[in-house]
Amino acid sequence: MVREDDIKYMQRCLDLAVKAEGLTYPNPLVGAVIVHEGRIIGEGYHLKAGGPHAEVAAIDSVRDRSLLKNSTIYVNLEPCSHYGKTPPCADRIISEGIRKIVVGANDTSDKVSGRGIAKLREAGCEVRTGIMENESRYLNRRFFTFHEKKRPYIILKWAMSADGFIDRPRDGKKENKPVWISGNPEKVLVHRWRSQEQAILAGAGTIRADNPQLNVREWTGNQPLRLVLTRSGAVGQNPAFSGPTGTYIVFTLSNDFALPDEVKIRLEEGIPAAEQVASYLWSRNISSLFVEGGSEVHNHFISLGLWDEARIFTGHQVFGGGVKAPELKGMRHSMQSSFSKSVLDLYERDFNAS
Amino acid sequence: MVREDDIKYMQRCLDLAVKAEGLTYPNPLVGAVIVHEGRIIGEGYHLKAGGPHAEVAAIDSVRDRSLLKNSTIYVNLEPCSHYGKTPPCADRIISEGIRKIVVGANDTSDKVSGRGIAKLREAGCEVRTGIMENESRYLNRRFFTFHEKKRPYIILKWAMSADGFIDRPRDGKKENKPVWISGNPEKVLVHRWRSQEQAILAGAGTIRADNPQLNVREWTGNQPLRLVLTRSGAVGQNPAFSGPTGTYIVFTLSNDFALPDEVKIRLEEGIPAAEQVASYLWSRNISSLFVEGGSEVHNHFISLGLWDEARIFTGHQVFGGGVKAPELKGMRHSMQSSFSKSVLDLYERDFNAS
Repeated sequence: MVREDDIKYMQRCLDLAVKAEGLTYPNPLVGAVIVHEGRIIGEGYHLKAGGPHAEVAAIDSVRDRSLLKNSTIYVNLEPCSHYGKTPPCADRIISEGIRKIVVGANDTSDKVSGRGIAKLREAGCEVRTGIMENESRYLNRRFFTFHEKKRPYIILKWAMSADGFIDRPRDGKKENKPVWISGNPEKVLVHRWRSQEQAILAGAGTIRADNPQLNVREWTGNQPLRLVLTRSGAVGQNPAFSGPTGTYIVFTLSNDFALPDEVKIRLEEGIPAAEQVASYLWSRNISSLFVEGGSEVHNHFISLGLWDEARIFTGHQVFGGGVKAPELKGMRHSMQSSFSKSVLDLYERDFNAS
Repeated sequence: MVREDDIKYMQRCLDLAVKAEGLTYPNPLVGAVIVHEGRIIGEGYHLKAGGPHAEVAAIDSVRDRSLLKNSTIYVNLEPCSHYGKTPPCADRIISEGIRKIVVGANDTSDKVSGRGIAKLREAGCEVRTGIMENESRYLNRRFFTFHEKKRPYIILKWAMSADGFIDRPRDGKKENKPVWISGNPEKVLVHRWRSQEQAILAGAGTIRADNPQLNVREWTGNQPLRLVLTRSGAVGQNPAFSGPTGTYIVFTLSNDFALPDEVKIRLEEGIPAAEQVASYLWSRNISSLFVEGGSEVHNHFISLGLWDEARIFTGHQVFGGGVKAPELKGMRHSMQSSFSKSVLDLYERDFNAS
């Protein structure tokens, strides 16, 4: 039975959890709230791997610990039952004398998988589960995808013209600058998105043509691991992708190019490249991937069903030709926010598109 | 000249301001931050009309007032210069001895319109303006639209099938239940959106067919004024639209129907209904309108260019016929978030669509 209060406190857990978006990898986003006789007496959230879990942060924030034995703890993910970088949260809850636990979603990862809840119940606690379960699973869609599908959560991103092209015709001449279809607010948004994922990927064609750095500059947050997908191994003269650094990796079919071994992953013939990338990221415990194109790379992931989310900007420009935007197959549902021309003068004065 | 710190503190103003989204009508969203030698010593935001403005809330939060004369105040909107429900913020800033002011966007409403900044400069303050101006204007797009275009900011919303229909064919039989194209998370989102606007409108056909209450139930927040647009005046047997209550208004071409005068607005022939609605809302100081359909109503607003933003859900269902979704003309740009079928099992177990 879901009570009205359950929704209120679980929503608070979710609101707390999301504050650390992009910062907790490979850990999930978790918030916890402790309620005593209708009042919140403590709350906390998991800020980064190695730091206190949400339940511990919430317990440590309570001033009068004697209230805990008559309190309820709300948490959007099943408390852990194992020793990782920190001791098990289930043990701490039990030892503090908290008797009532309300859980959003069960932790389906191999390390927990119901054992946290079992431990609490064995200790005599009352545990209710599945409160705002959809929302809890949505919040941690990267975590659940990683553990249940054994691959990273994959987000595709592109910008296209009103007539469905992601780039103007390339004529091979020197004037081959990238065209910004979206404006400044979108640029900031893309950098924010990058900071929320653990890895970011682009094809070598995009690297050569647009000269992107694929890092986070217009936002504060984590720098994702940068990946390049290429047949030949050539990534052009882009200075962001050269030298023996740990910040990028080139996946290639060729062994015949100049990059140092540390940044090179040899792809096997006959197995789709996207599957090999996904397996590699799984093995490195990387739970999310942001794919920035180009069109061929997007279509490759889409054709394999290897995508979970797509974020698409559409501008008002008409290109009349060029590189066709990817075709999004296997869509479940989408949400579109459109703005009219009449808002242009309102907040897009610096809009740098033609 | 924009300094790096300016962005940081102005972003904080915007983050504070947005906390009150939907609560400040008819006032704008404003946050303020006071910085002394690189440290934030006070901050605040406007929570509701009649309550303290952001600048005052920020000043009142400073413990050691003697620091103010060497501090800078950041605020995303020009401080006011007039007596409204509270005294002018510009006066308070001057009287507290703050000498440096950084402003996001100028207040273009008739009551301020540059006079706040002029007053500060006349008092010898250093005022820098236009810091994150786009973002500041975007945040208050309802406020700026209302004052600059003399009409409410208009948001259209609909949900449609994969093949572009907003409803299945109506066969006139008893089984005429509405079809939920979107799922539970979207339902919560729509209620949240309703709470952020000052008024909400639907056509009488939608009121009769879907029996909506057009209020906020799945979220906590303001209840918008509910509007119905109808030729005949008939709104059917929907109990949410009956009786002499101040919570709804029916716009109609007919004078020949049973509703009490208090809830009835007679439309003039020959002037587009949407224009009359917009004028009426302007006269009542209502600065935003959320339009929930149906298709005819949406197309009417679109054909007049009377829309600023459209929010469109697309599901995976194929209807193969029915009521066609509106055609969005005059779009400047859009952002689409799509989810693949593979996320269905992840967080949509309660998905109630077919």
